[in-house]
Amino acid sequence: DESAEVFGLGPDFIDMVVEGLDNDHAAAVSRLVSTLHHADLADLIERLSRDQRARLLEMGRDSLNYDFLPELDETVRDEVVELMGFADLAAALADLDSDDAVYIVENLGQEERDQVLARLPGDQRMAIEHGLAFEEDTAGRLMQRELVAVPSYWTVGETIDYLRSNARLPDEFYQLFVVDPRHRPIGTVRLSRLLRCKRPTRLGDIMDPNVPVIASTTDQEDVAFLFRQRDLLSAPVIDPSGRLIGRITIDDIVDVIDEEAEDDMLRMAGLSETHVYETVYKTTKSRFLWLIVNLGTAVLASLVIGLFESTIQQVVALAVLMPIVASMGGNAGTQTMTVAVRALATRELAADNALRLIGKEALVGLLNGVMLAVISGAVAWAWFGRPEIGLVIGAAMVINLVGAGLAGILIPLGLEKLKVDPALASGVFLTTVTDVVGFFAFLGLAALVLL
Amino acid sequence: DESAEVFGLGPDFIDMVVEGLDNDHAAAVSRLVSTLHHADLADLIERLSRDQRARLLEMGRDSLNYDFLPELDETVRDEVVELMGFADLAAALADLDSDDAVYIVENLGQEERDQVLARLPGDQRMAIEHGLAFEEDTAGRLMQRELVAVPSYWTVGETIDYLRSNARLPDEFYQLFVVDPRHRPIGTVRLSRLLRCKRPTRLGDIMDPNVPVIASTTDQEDVAFLFRQRDLLSAPVIDPSGRLIGRITIDDIVDVIDEEAEDDMLRMAGLSETHVYETVYKTTKSRFLWLIVNLGTAVLASLVIGLFESTIQQVVALAVLMPIVASMGGNAGTQTMTVAVRALATRELAADNALRLIGKEALVGLLNGVMLAVISGAVAWAWFGRPEIGLVIGAAMVINLVGAGLAGILIPLGLEKLKVDPALASGVFLTTVTDVVGFFAFLGLAALVLL
Ligand SMILES: [Mg+2]
Ligand SMILES: [Mg+2]
Ligand SMILES: [Mg+2]
Ligand SMILES: [Mg+2]
Ligand SMILES: [Mg+2]
Ligand SMILES: [Mg+2]
Ligand SMILES: [Mg+2]
Ligand SMILES: [Mg+2]
Ligand SMILES: [Mg+2]
Ligand SMILES: [Mg+2]
Ligand SMILES: [Mg+2]
Ligand SMILES: [Mg+2]
Ligand SMILES: [Mg+2]
Repeated sequence: DESAEVFGLGPDFIDMVVEGLDNDHAAAVSRLVSTLHHADLADLIERLSRDQRARLLEMGRDSLNYDFLPELDETVRDEVVELMGFADLAAALADLDSDDAVYIVENLGQEERDQVLARLPGDQRMAIEHGLAFEEDTAGRLMQRELVAVPSYWTVGETIDYLRSNARLPDEFYQLFVVDPRHRPIGTVRLSRLLRCKRPTRLGDIMDPNVPVIASTTDQEDVAFLFRQRDLLSAPVIDPSGRLIGRITIDDIVDVIDEEAEDDMLRMAGLSETHVYETVYKTTKSRFLWLIVNLGTAVLASLVIGLFESTIQQVVALAVLMPIVASMGGNAGTQTMTVAVRALATRELAADNALRLIGKEALVGLLNGVMLAVISGAVAWAWFGRPEIGLVIGAAMVINLVGAGLAGILIPLGLEKLKVDPALASGVFLTTVTDVVGFFAFLGLAALVLL
Repeated sequence: DESAEVFGLGPDFIDMVVEGLDNDHAAAVSRLVSTLHHADLADLIERLSRDQRARLLEMGRDSLNYDFLPELDETVRDEVVELMGFADLAAALADLDSDDAVYIVENLGQEERDQVLARLPGDQRMAIEHGLAFEEDTAGRLMQRELVAVPSYWTVGETIDYLRSNARLPDEFYQLFVVDPRHRPIGTVRLSRLLRCKRPTRLGDIMDPNVPVIASTTDQEDVAFLFRQRDLLSAPVIDPSGRLIGRITIDDIVDVIDEEAEDDMLRMAGLSETHVYETVYKTTKSRFLWLIVNLGTAVLASLVIGLFESTIQQVVALAVLMPIVASMGGNAGTQTMTVAVRALATRELAADNALRLIGKEALVGLLNGVMLAVISGAVAWAWFGRPEIGLVIGAAMVINLVGAGLAGILIPLGLEKLKVDPALASGVFLTTVTDVVGFFAFLGLAALVLL
C-alpha cells in the first residue's frame, strides 16, 4: 500500500544509497541520508553490509546525527559501535539524552565501557554511571534525568518567565513536576493547563495532585502497565527517600510494550530474539538449545509408545492413528496456553479469577473433546472398519483435550507462582504433557479394548 | 511485588467491593469506587458477575464517570451497554471524546445504534456518524475531532491569549497544528516550544514544518509504525482534499500496538481473542473451528503413515521413533515462523532482505538438522541395536529441518504477498508441511533401507 512508502524506507531508496556507497559517491549519499529521520537512518544502516556500514560512517563522520544509535538492532549496534571507535562514540554519547546514553553503554563490554566513559566529561560520566547503578529492566534504567521541576508557590507567570529565560532545560517536556522543598513530587501540571491559566494563578492551585510516583526499582513491565492504564505521557521517578530523580516518557514505554510483547511471543516458541540481523552461527546456536530440550521430550513420548510395541504389532492401524490424538492435544493446549500467557501479561488473569478460568478451560476442553471424539471416531471406524478403534480414539481424544485445557492454564499459572516467566517454559512442558497423555491414553485403551 | 499493588487493583480491593455489592452497602461501594481511575474501574467491572455489575451501575447511576466504557473488554462492554439502557448510554457518550464515542457505537448492533444516536444532540450525532463513515482499523476511525488549529501568522502572545480565553478547546492537547488559509496542516508547534518563546514571536517561525500528515484511509498498523518510529505524541489527520479533520493521540496508538501484537500472537495459535470474559459456549465454538482444520491436517499426516503400514508391521521400532522426526520439524519450523511473522510486523523483514533470510533459515535448518541427526541417530541405534535405523532417522531429521526452515519463512512471506495476514494461517500450513515431510521422509527411507 502507498502509506508503507510514505512512512519508512522504500526498497528503491535503499538501492540508491547502496549504489552511492558502492561507487563512493559521497555527495549523493550524504544528500540522501541528510533528509532521513534518525529512526529511518537506523533502519537503513541495518539493511547494509558491514562494508557499506563502515563506508557510510566514514562519509558521515562530521554530519551524521547520532540519535540513530539507540534505535539500532542490538547486533547491528555492536558492529557500528566497534566501527566508530571510542572517541567518536564518546562524542556521540555526549549529545544523547541520559537514558539513551545509558542504554548504549549498558550493552558494551567492561573494557569498552571503561574506555568510553574515560573520554566523557565528568558530569556526563557520572550521569551514566548513576543510571547503570540501577538494575536492568527497572524504572531507574529507563528514566532520564532531564526534566522540569518547579515549586508549588510559583505563579503561572513566574513559571513561563523561568521557562523562557532558562537555557538549560530539556529539549522537550510534556508536563511540569511540582516538588516540595525537599524535592519530593507532589503534583504535575500539564502544559495545556499551564497555557490556559492566567499569569497570577499559583501552580499549587492548578496542579493534579494524583500523580502516580514510580520507585526507581519498579520493574519496567509494571511501569508500562501504569502508563497504559492511565494514558500517561511522562511520570516522575523517585529514589528511596522520595526525592525526584528523573522522569520516564511515553516514547520509551512504547518500546518497552513492544519488547515485552515480542519477548512473550518469541519465548513461547523457544526463542530469545528475532535474530534477523544475527549471524548464522549465533542463530543456529541459540535455536539448538531449545531443540535439544524438545528432542528430550520427544524421546519421552517415544518411550511411552515403546511400552505398547506388541499392541502396535498386532493392530498396525494404531500406528497410523496415534499422531492424531497427540497433535489435537498439542493444538488445543497451545490455544489455552497462549490465552493464559497473554492474560497474565495484561493482568486479565490474576489470583481472584484463576480458579474460574481453570474450570472454564477444562469445560471447553471437554466439550471440544466430545465433538472431536465423535468426528475422529467416525473417521477411524470408516477407515479401518472396526468400531472399537473408533471408540478408542474417541475416548483418548476426550481425555487428551481435557488434559490439554488443564495443562494449558495450570502450567503458566504455576510458573508465574514460582516467579518464572510463564512464556519462557510453557511451550516445552505443554507438548510433553499432551504427547505423553495422548499416546498413553490412546495406546493404553487400545491394549485394553482391542486385544 | 509491591508495585503490582500500588498500580492497578489488588484482590483485597475487589473482595471489599464485592462484599459491599452483595450486601447492598451503597455508601461503602460508592466510597471505594469514587477514588478509582476510570481504567481501574473498568478492570473492576470486568471481575464482577452480571448481577454485581447491574447493582454497581444502579448504585452509581448519578456518580459514575463513564470514561470507563472504552476501557472495557468487548464482551463485558456489550453486557454493560445492555444493562445501562439507551438513555443512560446516550448521556454517557455525550461526555466522551469523539474517538471514544465512535469506538463504543461501532460495536453496537444496527438497531441499538439507531436508538442511541436518536437520543444524542444533532452535532454529536453527526460527529459520530462522520467517524463511522471511515473504515474500521483506519486513521479516520482512530482520530478525534477535538484539536487546536492556529494560523501561522499568529504570535506566541496572541496564541496564549486565545488559549486562555477560549472555553471550547479540548481538555488536553500536546501540540498546536498550524494550518494555512484552506485549513491544511503546514506545521506543528510543541507546547514546550511555545512556552519558551517570547510573546512577539510568530508561530510560522517556530513551527516544525516536517509534520507527518496521515490520510484518513491509512491503516492503523501503518499509523502505529509512524508513531513508534518518530516518537510522536499526536499527529494530524487529513481528508482527501488535504484539510485537517482530526488528530490521533499516542494513548490510542499504545492500544493499537498492544492489540496488533496480541492479534499476531493469538492468530498463530488459531485464536481470535483471549476470551477471558467470554462464555464457555462462545469460547468453545470459536476454538472448535481451528481444531477441526487441524484435525484435517492430522488425518493428512495419518494418510502418509498409512502408505507404509506394511513397513511398520515389519519394523515396529519405526512406529516408536516416527513422532520424533515430525515433532522436531514442527518445533524448528515454529521458531522460524515466529521470527518471520514478528519481523514482517516490525518491518525488519521486507522485499529487499527476504532472499537473504530465506537462505539463512535453510542453512540454520541444515546445521541444526545435522547436529540433531547425529544425536537422534545415536539414540535410535543404541535403543534398537540397529545402525541402519539410526541412519534413517538421521537422514529424515536433516530433510525435515531444512524443510521446516524453508516452510517457516516461505509460508508467512507467501501469505503477506497474497495480502493474507501471515499470522492468521501460518500455523496450520506449517505443521502440515513438517508432519507430512517428516513422516514421509522417515518411513520412505526406512522402506528403502531396512526392507
Ligand atoms: Mg528500526
Ligand atoms: Mg521483565
Ligand atoms: Mg489507554
Ligand atoms: Mg528517552
Ligand atoms: Mg527514544
Ligand atoms: Mg513478560
Ligand atoms: Mg529485535
Ligand atoms: Mg483493563
Ligand atoms: Mg490491520
Ligand atoms: Mg522510539
Ligand atoms: Mg482518544
Ligand atoms: Mg483513551
Ligand atoms: Mg497484523
